Amino acid sequence: MEKIRIGICGYGNLGKGVEKEIIKSKDMELVSIFTRRNPKDLKTTTKTISIDEVANYQDKIDVMIMCGGSATDLPKQVEEINKFYNTVDSFDTHAKIPEYFEGVNKNAIKNKKISIISGGWDPGLFSVMRTYMSAILQDGKTYTFWGKGVSQGHSDAIRRINGVKNAIQYTIPIEKAMEKVRNNENPNLTTKEKHLRECFVVAEDEADLEKIEEEIKTMPNYFNDYETIVNFISEEELKQNHSKMSHGGFVIHSGSTGENQHIMEFSLKLDSNPEFTSSVLIALARANYKMQKEKNYGAKTILDIPPAFLSPLSNEELRKTIL
Amino acid sequence: MEKIRIGICGYGNLGKGVEKEIIKSKDMELVSIFTRRNPKDLKTTTKTISIDEVANYQDKIDVMIMCGGSATDLPKQVEEINKFYNTVDSFDTHAKIPEYFEGVNKNAIKNKKISIISGGWDPGLFSVMRTYMSAILQDGKTYTFWGKGVSQGHSDAIRRINGVKNAIQYTIPIEKAMEKVRNNENPNLTTKEKHLRECFVVAEDEADLEKIEEEIKTMPNYFNDYETIVNFISEEELKQNHSKMSHGGFVIHSGSTGENQHIMEFSLKLDSNPEFTSSVLIALARANYKMQKEKNYGAKTILDIPPAFLSPLSNEELRKTIL
Repeated sequence: MEKIRIGICGYGNLGKGVEKEIIKSKDMELVSIFTRRNPKDLKTTTKTISIDEVANYQDKIDVMIMCGGSATDLPKQVEEINKFYNTVDSFDTHAKIPEYFEGVNKNAIKNKKISIISGGWDPGLFSVMRTYMSAILQDGKTYTFWGKGVSQGHSDAIRRINGVKNAIQYTIPIEKAMEKVRNNENPNLTTKEKHLRECFVVAEDEADLEKIEEEIKTMPNYFNDYETIVNFISEEELKQNHSKMSHGGFVIHSGSTGENQHIMEFSLKLDSNPEFTSSVLIALARANYKMQKEKNYGAKTILDIPPAFLSPLSNEELRKTIL
Repeated sequence: MEKIRIGICGYGNLGKGVEKEIIKSKDMELVSIFTRRNPKDLKTTTKTISIDEVANYQDKIDVMIMCGGSATDLPKQVEEINKFYNTVDSFDTHAKIPEYFEGVNKNAIKNKKISIISGGWDPGLFSVMRTYMSAILQDGKTYTFWGKGVSQGHSDAIRRINGVKNAIQYTIPIEKAMEKVRNNENPNLTTKEKHLRECFVVAEDEADLEKIEEEIKTMPNYFNDYETIVNFISEEELKQNHSKMSHGGFVIHSGSTGENQHIMEFSLKLDSNPEFTSSVLIALARANYKMQKEKNYGAKTILDIPPAFLSPLSNEELRKTIL
């Protein structure tokens, strides 16, 4: 069988996830990992190459999986890399997607490449759910709840408070709000009415715990409008119970036909946010490869791709075993 | 705005659902309903035409939504109708899909038409879920649970028992089995280990209730291997509490990446099975229309169609508001 030849660009949590998971895809082969660091410093399972030499592997790689961050890496890198390669990325700054799409699209068309952007689970798999749900029950309302999962931004904000040694913040969907949605009450809910924030804080020995708790709960934008729970724990407890990068969430659509009410619900419960995201990117790399045969160049999102393209099964097998 | 011109073929529960729901799609217009009955006998909101004249409306209809049954109507009708029209149907006899696909496909290609088959929720939306889930977490297992919902076949089987006036049978997922799946235990479960059967029976006045219950519970194929609950109720109670065509179900995928476990879950809770199925068919009719511009003729399933094609929103709007 002809194997899809994959490159990884960037070797953080996401890149490591792709590296580890790609062996499960019998139709794929990991060719090499490209890094900004000194390749000799990385312990990987495959050949590691400096990103400066990225242009030299064009005849060896079918799809490059871009594993940099959305804030600064991807906006620069993808437009650089898709001169040479078909790409898949997980750009997740929702508000900037239209602008990002335009830039990547222009380049991809010029270079006759396919760049799938904003893969992952939100944006990504959750977007797929929102699209199907709202298209099927047009007289309805879609709600997205995130969590339980760690928010890096909020954890960092707590760590900057005087007297705090370390901290982890979980965003948690409010069960009561979800119940209202599931009961077809169609409530109007803001983000803060849908989520509460639970903090696990390691304080310095002499710190004033009451003051820290007060400072967290009143922090503008981050916490002051939210229901916030603050727990003080030891450094050991933090390491033992709160070092997993777990996450998840819910997309719930409440809609009606005539007098009848319907609920569609999709949920994820993930032990490892980056490893699951890696798995979505790998499936999208397969889709990218299939799309290359159609020569339909440009930027694409998961919404532009038939579900069958993500599967290693043939259309015939899918009809026989999954449909 | 140019409107998609829709025809309905068949005026049972499904056809009535399409008729009622299509007005919610601002991009569509219902042209007419085709029936085998005398058109004068039907009370509809739109022009009703005898199916014998179906060939005469080819320049007036973009997509024909086929609303017949899977057992006998669709296998005959679709190959007849797609000589003239692009079609969408909800053929749901899983085991016969490959054969059905081949026949419809051959005809559709010959006639330069697009026929979307097996739309609905299972096969259909549930198939979409199974495809995404199994493609993303390849090291995993997908489980489908049906219900709580009425099974017509099982209800009919009870009605044939001596002394039974009327009956309704619900298929209900077994909560414990679902919990095992959600706990990543990856159990091996047969259909009967996943579902129990609850029966609501109206007996004749002098009937021997114990004997009826025994006969239900020991009925081969239908009940004897299942956990079965039998309730005797009055005719009024049956009408009042059990006349809705509610249904639903769950698709749960338990998978892992390295040491980490993940759960993906999709569920439907539907007040009206035929009305929800109608809504899926309407969204697929929109997809059919968009696919006509690509002239990619033949039989298709929902797995071959990008999610964006089902939506009334443009790709640009989708990226901005839903992605």
